[in-house]
Amino acid sequence: MTEFHPLRPGSTIGILGGGQLGRMLSLAASQLGMKTHIFCPDAESPAFDVTPNKTVAGYDDVAALRAFAGGVDVVTYEFENVPLATAKVIAEHTPLFPGPRALEVSQDRLVEKRFLTQAGIAVAPYRAVTRRDDLDRAIAEIGLPAVLKTTRLGYDGKGQRTLRTQEDAERAFGEIGGVELVLEGFIGFEREISVIVVRGRDGAIVSYDPAENVHVDHILKTSTLPASISAAAAEKARAMAGEIASALDYVGTMGVEFFVASDGDAPQLLVNEIAPRVHNSGHWTQAVCVTDQFENHIRAICGWPLGDTTRLADVVMENLIGAEIADTAKRTGTKGLQPHVYGKAEARDGRKMGHLNLVTLPNARN
Amino acid sequence: MTEFHPLRPGSTIGILGGGQLGRMLSLAASQLGMKTHIFCPDAESPAFDVTPNKTVAGYDDVAALRAFAGGVDVVTYEFENVPLATAKVIAEHTPLFPGPRALEVSQDRLVEKRFLTQAGIAVAPYRAVTRRDDLDRAIAEIGLPAVLKTTRLGYDGKGQRTLRTQEDAERAFGEIGGVELVLEGFIGFEREISVIVVRGRDGAIVSYDPAENVHVDHILKTSTLPASISAAAAEKARAMAGEIASALDYVGTMGVEFFVASDGDAPQLLVNEIAPRVHNSGHWTQAVCVTDQFENHIRAICGWPLGDTTRLADVVMENLIGAEIADTAKRTGTKGLQPHVYGKAEARDGRKMGHLNLVTLPNARN
Repeated sequence: MTEFHPLRPGSTIGILGGGQLGRMLSLAASQLGMKTHIFCPDAESPAFDVTPNKTVAGYDDVAALRAFAGGVDVVTYEFENVPLATAKVIAEHTPLFPGPRALEVSQDRLVEKRFLTQAGIAVAPYRAVTRRDDLDRAIAEIGLPAVLKTTRLGYDGKGQRTLRTQEDAERAFGEIGGVELVLEGFIGFEREISVIVVRGRDGAIVSYDPAENVHVDHILKTSTLPASISAAAAEKARAMAGEIASALDYVGTMGVEFFVASDGDAPQLLVNEIAPRVHNSGHWTQAVCVTDQFENHIRAICGWPLGDTTRLADVVMENLIGAEIADTAKRTGTKGLQPHVYGKAEARDGRKMGHLNLVTLPNARN
Repeated sequence: MTEFHPLRPGSTIGILGGGQLGRMLSLAASQLGMKTHIFCPDAESPAFDVTPNKTVAGYDDVAALRAFAGGVDVVTYEFENVPLATAKVIAEHTPLFPGPRALEVSQDRLVEKRFLTQAGIAVAPYRAVTRRDDLDRAIAEIGLPAVLKTTRLGYDGKGQRTLRTQEDAERAFGEIGGVELVLEGFIGFEREISVIVVRGRDGAIVSYDPAENVHVDHILKTSTLPASISAAAAEKARAMAGEIASALDYVGTMGVEFFVASDGDAPQLLVNEIAPRVHNSGHWTQAVCVTDQFENHIRAICGWPLGDTTRLADVVMENLIGAEIADTAKRTGTKGLQPHVYGKAEARDGRKMGHLNLVTLPNARN
């Protein structure tokens, strides 16, 4: 990797992935005077509508990756399943942020949990499961209920099963076994929160107020600010997110999801998972922060100082899934509503089509 | 003009003009899921970096205008000097917002002043000046000091001269005479303010808090919120801006500049000029409003409901002129600072290269 200096406006940021996150990253880069180049195998990528520079090619197309990397000043990505081989080809030509270590850790649940544990971050009890008898031993040690998950390529609830009985275990292993798995102790959590943390090239760290997240059918539905947790718990979650970013020598915006198992004087916060990218539960920052998670990601990877994460008002972010996008124009008449539409042609079931930031009570004072 | 229905995401917005305003309009359109197509004669236009769809052609290129208009769902513009012939060609094929009437009025200072006067809006005393003896008569009636201006194509102080003596009048007429002129009474104003007003297709009107503007060398340097005027004056300015928008049957965002000649119980507000477009003195809305002036312009021309103009915090917008752009990355470390860089290759003297929104004290309550 070549040495890195703060990027000047007019530089080009390469983005792997052309979905809504790549699109919103590109819009933020444009705000800072940067050009962007989107690399995505899907010719219908929504991010292609916001820049004149695109490459339609597979992530295993080494020649296309080299040409792409050679024509940009820095590369980032919108999803954590960028193949490590792809990242390596890029990094031979151009700085890649976040670095390959963040990908390696976040692509594998087991590697991630081991990394977090070593970093002193609390996670739910877990055991690696390869063979059928690993599962029996894991259940004996962790107990039921528990959740069996593939270690790789799971998202939005895919590749996981909740086990309440031995019969569930039998069936689940039949359905998703044959690849590396992890059994996680079932956490009777009160709520799910997430922290968006940003780390700069110089190691500076900023984070945003924790969001309280509600999932429907394993897909994020709403993020609400403020979360109904104590100030101490919020502070602790932000500190933990910062520790994770530092332990990874991370550069950019990262999402950290937590289970809040109790919230008294000593709130129990367990990290569920980390995402080495801008995160759906941070979209609220667009409406009520001077610097949103997208701009801060661009600032970080460009070596610029990080921006102000102060929250100027209360806000609820609501995802628009599938056909829910149809009413957007009508709903925008609601006071305090800031819509974001991703420009996807087809509103398939379960597909994230846009989101609404509904700004409610302003803070009395920040 | 064909009948107009609310535009659906995925529609294409044509923008005449590829400068920073066109660029920021395109970014706002992308937020709402719209595609954009930029038409500009300058091949180096900064707006070309934020969309894959561009036409490089002159505003008198009828074939290019027809192809452009035929390929988009609505057309808008970033500057008021769109030739009326150009507007007419566009409007034959595609809805054009704001309409030709707004262009006609704002392109000619004399037409504008007559329009405002007829609409019951106070302006500085003025006289039309064509010949040398018109000027003598105007000076006799209005007095000195006064300001002599070309009626057309003046901006950033170009085409105007301040007259304090008969000798000034002699020289100024020699320098800028030969075209239609207007002599304006010199207003001993306390401050300059502006109101950004937005009018929807349905006639709904919203406006933003007045900004207090400081010009340096006839170029806007800062816009400060709140302006140091009374609540009554702010209310009156917003009402006047709304009346102007209604009188023009305007659709979109408009900037209205005022002189505040006094600010007691009966503040005297004189309209200096109107701009039928998003306006430099409204850039602060990007940092502290749920819906900024760009999004509201796109909402308006698309027939969507208008958005919330509540100001969530105090803010100062500072233009970065010419070489001032060089320090931007360093300055972004300032708390509360939101930078916008236009991506112009060359930082020429007097050229607007970017702006900074510095968010200061939040409002106690909105």
